[in-house]
Amino acid sequence: MSLIVQKYGGTSMGSPERIREVARRVARFAREGHQLVVVPSAMAGETNRLLALAREVHPEPSPRELDVIASTGEQVSIGLLALALQRQGLEARSYTGWQVPILTDAAYAKARILHIEDSRMRADLAAGRVVIVAGFQGIDELNNITTLGRGGSDTTGVALAAALKADECQIYTDVDGVYTTDPRIVPEARRLSTITFEEMLELASLGSKVLQIRSVEFAGKYKVKLRVLSSFTDVESTDMGTLITFEEEENMEQAIISGIAFNRDEAKITVLGVPDRPGIAFAILDPIAQANIDVDMIIQNASIEGLTDFSFTVHRNEYKRAMQILESKVQPAIGARGIVGDDRIAKVSLVGIGMRTHAGIASKMFGTLAREGVNIQMISTSEIKTSVVVDEKYMELAVRVLHREFALDKEPTLERMTP
Amino acid sequence: MSLIVQKYGGTSMGSPERIREVARRVARFAREGHQLVVVPSAMAGETNRLLALAREVHPEPSPRELDVIASTGEQVSIGLLALALQRQGLEARSYTGWQVPILTDAAYAKARILHIEDSRMRADLAAGRVVIVAGFQGIDELNNITTLGRGGSDTTGVALAAALKADECQIYTDVDGVYTTDPRIVPEARRLSTITFEEMLELASLGSKVLQIRSVEFAGKYKVKLRVLSSFTDVESTDMGTLITFEEEENMEQAIISGIAFNRDEAKITVLGVPDRPGIAFAILDPIAQANIDVDMIIQNASIEGLTDFSFTVHRNEYKRAMQILESKVQPAIGARGIVGDDRIAKVSLVGIGMRTHAGIASKMFGTLAREGVNIQMISTSEIKTSVVVDEKYMELAVRVLHREFALDKEPTLERMTP
Repeated sequence: MSLIVQKYGGTSMGSPERIREVARRVARFAREGHQLVVVPSAMAGETNRLLALAREVHPEPSPRELDVIASTGEQVSIGLLALALQRQGLEARSYTGWQVPILTDAAYAKARILHIEDSRMRADLAAGRVVIVAGFQGIDELNNITTLGRGGSDTTGVALAAALKADECQIYTDVDGVYTTDPRIVPEARRLSTITFEEMLELASLGSKVLQIRSVEFAGKYKVKLRVLSSFTDVESTDMGTLITFEEEENMEQAIISGIAFNRDEAKITVLGVPDRPGIAFAILDPIAQANIDVDMIIQNASIEGLTDFSFTVHRNEYKRAMQILESKVQPAIGARGIVGDDRIAKVSLVGIGMRTHAGIASKMFGTLAREGVNIQMISTSEIKTSVVVDEKYMELAVRVLHREFALDKEPTLERMTP
Repeated sequence: MSLIVQKYGGTSMGSPERIREVARRVARFAREGHQLVVVPSAMAGETNRLLALAREVHPEPSPRELDVIASTGEQVSIGLLALALQRQGLEARSYTGWQVPILTDAAYAKARILHIEDSRMRADLAAGRVVIVAGFQGIDELNNITTLGRGGSDTTGVALAAALKADECQIYTDVDGVYTTDPRIVPEARRLSTITFEEMLELASLGSKVLQIRSVEFAGKYKVKLRVLSSFTDVESTDMGTLITFEEEENMEQAIISGIAFNRDEAKITVLGVPDRPGIAFAILDPIAQANIDVDMIIQNASIEGLTDFSFTVHRNEYKRAMQILESKVQPAIGARGIVGDDRIAKVSLVGIGMRTHAGIASKMFGTLAREGVNIQMISTSEIKTSVVVDEKYMELAVRVLHREFALDKEPTLERMTP
């Protein structure tokens, strides 16, 4: 008998019929003797509907009230799923974030989980009940409702698995695992049966959208066994999706490149003509951090005549706010020549643990893009990824040609692993 | 400076535009220097949408999970109203039932308020904030979410007014006060500028639908000054709706009859051939009470040869459940001959404090209905009301002829008060 945490995404919970299907899947695991904690997302489209309502009432809604509104989507889901499980003859009980409680910090819309009280859940599990916990939400120490940000239900699932020391955290979604890239863009994209935690981290953060990055970080930190599976297979299916592994040795047939991630959720901002002196990066980025805006890529060019250009990317939703902060606070303070930005960009990244030991990956990538006439605007590299920023309109082309060039549609072979 | 609790119903909160209108009205009172606690209902249609979703998943949903789901409607409303008020430049903060907290008993779907913690609200009011509290919901002592039943937001409003010792509780709805009867059925129906608490109690409980009965009971118990007004008048309107008074002297021009209430929310059940012995009423009604089903009218006919028929009415939604309990538990236990029921009935009631001192009201009522060929199935009377149960199809006819017969379309005069 295992303790399994299962998280079901919005499309899995998309309609009463889909919810009944989720209940049948949960019931199958319960019949097999497992203890189950289930974390549903809001029904597909519901969170967007709620946020749109809020923006109709106030174009710049306060984050506190936005979380009050947005968190109702998951609350409806837990009630409906409990009913569906009860109809399957199972004992089931739902809990909101505050009922568990899941304690978070007070950063509305992007709160971080600080502590999960497990006593009530453990009592239910011991009594043979399926426990249902609302994803995406928690409370801060003043009992304000918080949400964990988009995709936060994954984080809830992994955090619950960590708190309960569950045997596995299963993330059910509308895809059946992690692919080398998005099959909607590259039909030859291939499913990976395993992927390392670090690669998954890069793929998630770079926009593969299978898992929220914070959930993967959490899984790595607490060594939660994480599995991505489809909720659209037959309920009795034994397909095991993609397992995220923590040990490189587990993954002997590792390809050089595991996948290609991409997103168009970012915008780039460049502070022009910055005096090149110590503390300037802090002077630019601290006001951004104070406003709770996450920065992704950061690039500073070599200086010419004591002046340099400082570029970074932020989420596209934060673009205007970041520009305002820079123009009103940062530019006058540091005496920069100007601020320019572009929110019509896309980021394309090659990810692979094999990059650590194989040279020439980046230059092969740049050469491939050059042959197709794709201009590279920014470059950033880490041990296991190489990212480029390109004009948004070239994104799909770039992903397709790179997928072909690195032969990601084929199973890795020992031959291909030894260039 | 007064402390005013304002409750806004579902149609008042029916759209972002309506919510902005509510905010403008609240802002007007705030500008006049009043302290404000505002209780919104769920947006019109939202509660029904949620309950329908639940029933799609489970035809007989568990009350606990139903309350988890249903309570989200008001949670969305408080967030949206807070945003609308902030857009008006006011400081506003929303609270769910558990955040206040509003402690209730554990009777899901029809919970009763036990205690309201006022410290957080008082701190906000002292800081100049408008406090917004979700109607209809609370928590029991085990932190389960409860709801107060249909119209429960009125009760929340009055209970908050009592807890905060507010100067007035204003119930905003889509009608501009209490009428002699429903103007949709009798166009000549007239608005009352005042009505006594007791009459209001009878009118509310009998289905005038302006106020939930429990809220009026609460208002009476804690002497909360209650006023019914329209949220569809101009924001600056000084129309003061209908005030519910507690002193008969306040209301010198009281008519004999204040209004006619009616509803088709009930079903009647008759237990046939009951042995007429002590304890039989308890034997029949205790299992119904144990199942948390409210009983309205109760009638026991005189017995013939030691057998009697015992009739009562329940809410139409509880009809099937009550019939099941009677057939499975009560009938075998007491040896009744049979159980019959009818859920196509309507109740029509004359209400008036003047009935106390004026004879002949009931017989005039019965005579009027007889002339129109309306058969009376059940009769029940109290000091200030006379109710009859008739076939549902005669309901509107009965209301119209009684309204005319008792001259409710005309202002009461001293002459008419002295028959």
